[in-house]
Amino acid sequence: MFMHNKRLMYTVRVGAPDPRLANLILEQFGGADGELAAAMRYFTQGLAESDSGRKDLLLDIATEELSHLEVVGSIVVMLNKGIKTQMAEGIGAAELMANITGGTDSHTTALLYGGGVALTNSAGVPWTGAYVDSRTEPTADLRSNIAAEARAKIIYERLINLCDDPGVKDALGFLMTREVAHQKSFEKALYAMEANFPPGKLPGQPEFTDKYFNMSQGAGDTRGPWNQGEQWEFVEDREQQAAVDGGDGTASVKLARRDLELQKQMMARTMSDPASDPITGADLGAGPGAGKTKALT
Amino acid sequence: MFMHNKRLMYTVRVGAPDPRLANLILEQFGGADGELAAAMRYFTQGLAESDSGRKDLLLDIATEELSHLEVVGSIVVMLNKGIKTQMAEGIGAAELMANITGGTDSHTTALLYGGGVALTNSAGVPWTGAYVDSRTEPTADLRSNIAAEARAKIIYERLINLCDDPGVKDALGFLMTREVAHQKSFEKALYAMEANFPPGKLPGQPEFTDKYFNMSQGAGDTRGPWNQGEQWEFVEDREQQAAVDGGDGTASVKLARRDLELQKQMMARTMSDPASDPITGADLGAGPGAGKTKALT
Amino acid sequence: MFMHNKRLMYTVRVGAPDPRLANLILEQFGGADGELAAAMRYFTQGLAESDSGRKDLLLDIATEELSHLEVVGSIVVMLNKGIKTQMAEGIGAAELMANITGGTDSHTTALLYGGGVALTNSAGVPWTGAYVDSRTEPTADLRSNIAAEARAKIIYERLINLCDDPGVKDALGFLMTREVAHQKSFEKALYAMEANFPPGKLPGQPEFTDKYFNMSQGAGDTRGPWNQGEQWEFVEDREQQAAVDGGDGTASVKLARRDLELQKQMMARTMSDPASDPITGADLGAGPGAGKTKALT
Amino acid sequence: MFMHNKRLMYTVRVGAPDPRLANLILEQFGGADGELAAAMRYFTQGLAESDSGRKDLLLDIATEELSHLEVVGSIVVMLNKGIKTQMAEGIGAAELMANITGGTDSHTTALLYGGGVALTNSAGVPWTGAYVDSRTEPTADLRSNIAAEARAKIIYERLINLCDDPGVKDALGFLMTREVAHQKSFEKALYAMEANFPPGKLPGQPEFTDKYFNMSQGAGDTRGPWNQGEQWEFVEDREQQAAVDGGDGTASVKLARRDLELQKQMMARTMSDPASDPITGADLGAGPGAGKTKALT
Amino acid sequence: MFMHNKRLMYTVRVGAPDPRLANLILEQFGGADGELAAAMRYFTQGLAESDSGRKDLLLDIATEELSHLEVVGSIVVMLNKGIKTQMAEGIGAAELMANITGGTDSHTTALLYGGGVALTNSAGVPWTGAYVDSRTEPTADLRSNIAAEARAKIIYERLINLCDDPGVKDALGFLMTREVAHQKSFEKALYAMEANFPPGKLPGQPEFTDKYFNMSQGAGDTRGPWNQGEQWEFVEDREQQAAVDGGDGTASVKLARRDLELQKQMMARTMSDPASDPITGADLGAGPGAGKTKALT
Amino acid sequence: MFMHNKRLMYTVRVGAPDPRLANLILEQFGGADGELAAAMRYFTQGLAESDSGRKDLLLDIATEELSHLEVVGSIVVMLNKGIKTQMAEGIGAAELMANITGGTDSHTTALLYGGGVALTNSAGVPWTGAYVDSRTEPTADLRSNIAAEARAKIIYERLINLCDDPGVKDALGFLMTREVAHQKSFEKALYAMEANFPPGKLPGQPEFTDKYFNMSQGAGDTRGPWNQGEQWEFVEDREQQAAVDGGDGTASVKLARRDLELQKQMMARTMSDPASDPITGADLGAGPGAGKTKALT
Repeated sequence: MFMHNKRLMYTVRVGAPDPRLANLILEQFGGADGELAAAMRYFTQGLAESDSGRKDLLLDIATEELSHLEVVGSIVVMLNKGIKTQMAEGIGAAELMANITGGTDSHTTALLYGGGVALTNSAGVPWTGAYVDSRTEPTADLRSNIAAEARAKIIYERLINLCDDPGVKDALGFLMTREVAHQKSFEKALYAMEANFPPGKLPGQPEFTDKYFNMSQGAGDTRGPWNQGEQWEFVEDREQQAAVDGGDGTASVKLARRDLELQKQMMARTMSDPASDPITGADLGAGPGAGKTKALT
Repeated sequence: MFMHNKRLMYTVRVGAPDPRLANLILEQFGGADGELAAAMRYFTQGLAESDSGRKDLLLDIATEELSHLEVVGSIVVMLNKGIKTQMAEGIGAAELMANITGGTDSHTTALLYGGGVALTNSAGVPWTGAYVDSRTEPTADLRSNIAAEARAKIIYERLINLCDDPGVKDALGFLMTREVAHQKSFEKALYAMEANFPPGKLPGQPEFTDKYFNMSQGAGDTRGPWNQGEQWEFVEDREQQAAVDGGDGTASVKLARRDLELQKQMMARTMSDPASDPITGADLGAGPGAGKTKALT
Repeated sequence: MFMHNKRLMYTVRVGAPDPRLANLILEQFGGADGELAAAMRYFTQGLAESDSGRKDLLLDIATEELSHLEVVGSIVVMLNKGIKTQMAEGIGAAELMANITGGTDSHTTALLYGGGVALTNSAGVPWTGAYVDSRTEPTADLRSNIAAEARAKIIYERLINLCDDPGVKDALGFLMTREVAHQKSFEKALYAMEANFPPGKLPGQPEFTDKYFNMSQGAGDTRGPWNQGEQWEFVEDREQQAAVDGGDGTASVKLARRDLELQKQMMARTMSDPASDPITGADLGAGPGAGKTKALT
Repeated sequence: MFMHNKRLMYTVRVGAPDPRLANLILEQFGGADGELAAAMRYFTQGLAESDSGRKDLLLDIATEELSHLEVVGSIVVMLNKGIKTQMAEGIGAAELMANITGGTDSHTTALLYGGGVALTNSAGVPWTGAYVDSRTEPTADLRSNIAAEARAKIIYERLINLCDDPGVKDALGFLMTREVAHQKSFEKALYAMEANFPPGKLPGQPEFTDKYFNMSQGAGDTRGPWNQGEQWEFVEDREQQAAVDGGDGTASVKLARRDLELQKQMMARTMSDPASDPITGADLGAGPGAGKTKALT
Repeated sequence: MFMHNKRLMYTVRVGAPDPRLANLILEQFGGADGELAAAMRYFTQGLAESDSGRKDLLLDIATEELSHLEVVGSIVVMLNKGIKTQMAEGIGAAELMANITGGTDSHTTALLYGGGVALTNSAGVPWTGAYVDSRTEPTADLRSNIAAEARAKIIYERLINLCDDPGVKDALGFLMTREVAHQKSFEKALYAMEANFPPGKLPGQPEFTDKYFNMSQGAGDTRGPWNQGEQWEFVEDREQQAAVDGGDGTASVKLARRDLELQKQMMARTMSDPASDPITGADLGAGPGAGKTKALT
Repeated sequence: MFMHNKRLMYTVRVGAPDPRLANLILEQFGGADGELAAAMRYFTQGLAESDSGRKDLLLDIATEELSHLEVVGSIVVMLNKGIKTQMAEGIGAAELMANITGGTDSHTTALLYGGGVALTNSAGVPWTGAYVDSRTEPTADLRSNIAAEARAKIIYERLINLCDDPGVKDALGFLMTREVAHQKSFEKALYAMEANFPPGKLPGQPEFTDKYFNMSQGAGDTRGPWNQGEQWEFVEDREQQAAVDGGDGTASVKLARRDLELQKQMMARTMSDPASDPITGADLGAGPGAGKTKALT
């Protein structure tokens, strides 16, 4: 069960309204690497988790992320507080228009969301469950969590780089730091699994686990620990990259007789005749100066 | 520049058509952890990458994933080959209906996509660019790649568990194995960066990097390396979890005088009076046996 | 700040696994009228609300909805507990396939989400921020909340109608009832605003507030309190329904001279000549038995 | 059957082109509270409605909303008329770039939609069927309609606040007013149902209908008619908020023996060992000055 | 202005309810090639069109498609009429569950949409404005319309193939036929433009208009009128396919000095060292039997 | 199988960074008519195609479009190269904010995507599989391809109109030209099918193939080859437009007796009584100066 305490996890002191900055910070409220995505990633994993250690960890951090969501949302609300009342009460149209068109998507935050806070990213795109990559397998999920924390850390860092307001910067710094701490926890939980690589239960096929296919060739080809050393067999011959199973590289299926008949019938009906020389719509439409007349005679 | 060779990277031999299985395998064609998502994740990173080693690595694997996309798509096409012609040529309605309603979303693959192959997941949901979590920062992106390969490995493993056709199983095994190899490469590239943690350039705030907030409490609370040991300070007092900056935990902003006036005006206009005792729409609608009459008198 | 207690708000006792039912119940986890949508609707409103009564109310109910989200998610997890391990550990492919294809979208819950719980609706469609209709204006938002609670009540009622498991039914009954209670609260808060209709600040134009336009005519036309009585002026003459401002019903704009020139130039360049008698692509493609030969001569 | 008359429902007189304003007004064409959403909400309800009064009402208003859609679209087209021809015929690049980048999303309206009118909101987000909350239950649907009209009224009010062009303002005023009239009609239809609360057929559970759970506590807690008075029982003891059924607040399911075995096997395979002290990827990546060396020894 | 007549454009006589078929037919209500997409494609074009002939044509057909939308929706409603009341009034859970799980997404139509009609496709995916490919350029738009009519014709044909109910089949036949008629009209309007190819105003670059690049090579390479004949120059030498401008095939930009410095700094900070031999997270996680011990020593 | 050559298909020489232009050009990377949509359209068709000529053609052009995607992405990366390092390394906040808010959605490209390249359109909307209209029927698919090439040509033309940088303009010109060439090829393949109209296999119903319904009437009605001439029968009598099958224009279904009973029961339970005169929530909320008092007495 969730409970709520009216004090924020971090005090929010905003110097002055700034709808443009508010819109950017929405990225961490309703964006791909924002706090709702984080909270829901861990919450869905935590609900389905049977391992008591991971379950507890996931619910701890999910709950903290909800508390962060509240901090981020409160920053946005404060930055929008002026525009909210201006939209509600009405001031001169020209001034109002200028105040909402600062070069971000603050026009939509103001018009559609009334200068409140919305589950969109900084481009006004609504949050989607597709951001949540929980797969109910711990070695994959913990790696997804580690990556998500790394991404979130970077977005906060970029926002800090964009921010001049000391109070906002301070709160963003706290939020950024917590992503670092969370990443550490998820790493510990991953490596506390005795064997966590490869993920899942089925082993890989030995003949393909250590091959590196040099698929992109030309000036810039580089060797490094990711494709050289004793863990790797480097394959650059194009012939060795195709049909690596030793077959002919085609796709086939055994069809029942009736379906073979239908297939033949369909192919005859729909063949593009390679020996034809048709006049086309483009020929017709190429205009008087082009091949049209010729085409039609 | 991309070039194409008509031989597949892996030969596809399907025993018999099966639109239901085809629909499940779409998950790896147009789903969140599918091959297009993988190819586009690495391709977008590779284009924007300035480090020559990582750029080469990313384009190599992006290209291989496109080749995998072709293998997956070819499996789907073969499994759907019967239903495709049946839909095109027409057979008895009852048989056709039975053939497309096998308990997955094969009805949509057949009806809308004609028994071909579609950029949707196994639920028929169109692929979205939101699946691509590239952020143009290498320590975050490489971790996202590691996680994505782990997830993709798991989905292939689940498909293999669901599959009885030896030819399909064989190809799925190859594809699953390559995700393992790719994960290895991305790990090498990450750890070939001298300092890759924390991600990005800004350091965390020391006072919050090592704290673990026990936000979820009760039976099931567990300690482990993710919240105990010398790297952690464990905080479970609820008071110590709120307003961790030492402030009062409120959100505030300095408004200009005009906006303060507007704010006052708006609040007076829109107050919900806590001392009122209003009749409501629900009271009106509660019906003759309920409080309606009373409410109105 | 949010805190979490490991006890659920309502005890969940599931009789036996049932992935098909689990998939339906996802509707209230990650669907349009589900608990996340509810929680986020009230949470976003609460953050931006300045009226202390409504703010408190909104955060109370937002928090309760998060607790409901946990109850719903726990039901889904229990119903999927068998399929989760079967997918992870692997059992016979045929049995596994049968277990995940029960005629709902449980195939995707099992394959992509591993038999956990996912932020999708019962069709596998990811949750979207577009479900959250908060607009930061209290008379509109409270009405949206009332409507949302009514919809959620109905979905729970339908799930109860579909459910035979007493433990699940019992929990669904609790959740359904709470939507009724929440609707009551939102109604009280709405009618505790002295004047809440029409919404917002600007009054309507008197000449159009009481008109009812009978736009759909024919057998079935019905009069009732929604279009008759002293509050209404009924307009059924088609002439009186067009250009109700008394103008000519056209759209016009004053263009600058340069743009008028460009406009003329574009129109000349792109006119479809009504006096022409062109051969078309369709004429070409109508085949040997159709007008093609004729068309070309 | 729908018919169309070339006269608009309201004459549109635009003073001068303004792509920036055009983009904002798209909110009511292809946005969440726009006219297509309204028309489709009532149209889908009307089609499925069996009650002749409501069916007629719903089709009347659906048709009027389509006519409003045309008015809104015509305003947008007029405001974009200059930019449309400039994009089509080409003028100097610098001037053209300046004309489309006015601080809203007019760059996309111009580039992708050619200065026409598009089914997106003011942020360029495509219209989605998720905006339509019709549920085929009249007491819920009518409440959704009432709320939708209230929201639409507010968006028009905000647009009017942003608008200086008298002709546009005039048309927006008409459209805003009609939302007020429609809300009135839907209210009448709702209360013309003898008992409309609670929605649907199943009654609520008496023990939970009148409880108010004070889930958010602290400075700012407020009592009002929404949680006090004879209709409410106020619950603030945290113990009384958890497991309100009197159970232990856990989630359980009875698994078959085979699944219990699989469960045990999976848990052993995937345990995160709480007693371990693992070196992690983050430890490795913390760089030369950090714990790496120590971690590895 | 739109008006509505209560008679349908085509009488709908359904033999018996069939929620499974209803769900498939939703494809033409709220699907990509359905009637709403058609109506909105032509309506948006018609609003922005200045050519009087095309404007009239587009509004004629947009209006007819809305009338078709009503016919399709009425079919769906009739097919769902039984399940709608069963969901509303409640019948035995087992029977109800069986009635909604017929192997399509009828479970969602019943549960979420109450057995009405919804703006989703046959997989339950909400309609999106992304289906509408209007670009406000007539030669492109008319071709999009021609293609859209062709696609819609095919989906109706597939539905007819799937349908045994004579009344439904009859109505579907009418709807299919009208797509053919509409395609004809759009073709006439396209070819009534004197020069309609290439689309738009700017001519192509002569050196690249007639080249055909044979990018996919191997068994199956085929020549036909699309790549041979006097209109084509066939390029198959891989060298001639890269950097076709004669340059070096690289991408470059001139950076200001400050940005060059930042670039250098960033590259040094984030290099993946190709000469390193790092231990990775995967090495750590490969378990006791793998290279872990070795890696750490 | 795909292979990659590090040389681009066209050399990219950018004069100077310009994040605003970069954002517009994203339209052709991750937008509806962009290169990924093109590549995937042809690739999915090519995989499912059985006709060897069309299969080869589709894979040739799909591969070329992937190579174009790389060119477009490289342009974007070069235009963003300055902002990318500024975001990564940090410069003054005010300057950085100014650099990313140029009136397009470059703020999101910079903040979320780090100044790289993203699969979004120019409004920041993620790419969706819904852009891909492949239907696995060649006469429809080829028409969709023709239309898609026409649209893509137009977007490139608009970008060229917006662009002052000679190097970028040059590359855009190449890309635009190739769309023209591709359209030509698809036209040839379409007309190389002996009979390609109407699409598919089922013929239209003769009585409805040649009718043109004049659904939109009034000033502006126009006749042209699309609705006059020997191929057309023009129907403008409104009576002849409704129930064109000669029936009564109603929708009906035969319900089983049990369902008829349920239907009756539901209708009685949910009737909106047309003879009632209810007080409504709007009446209650109209405030002291309105009809409220009257309503309640």
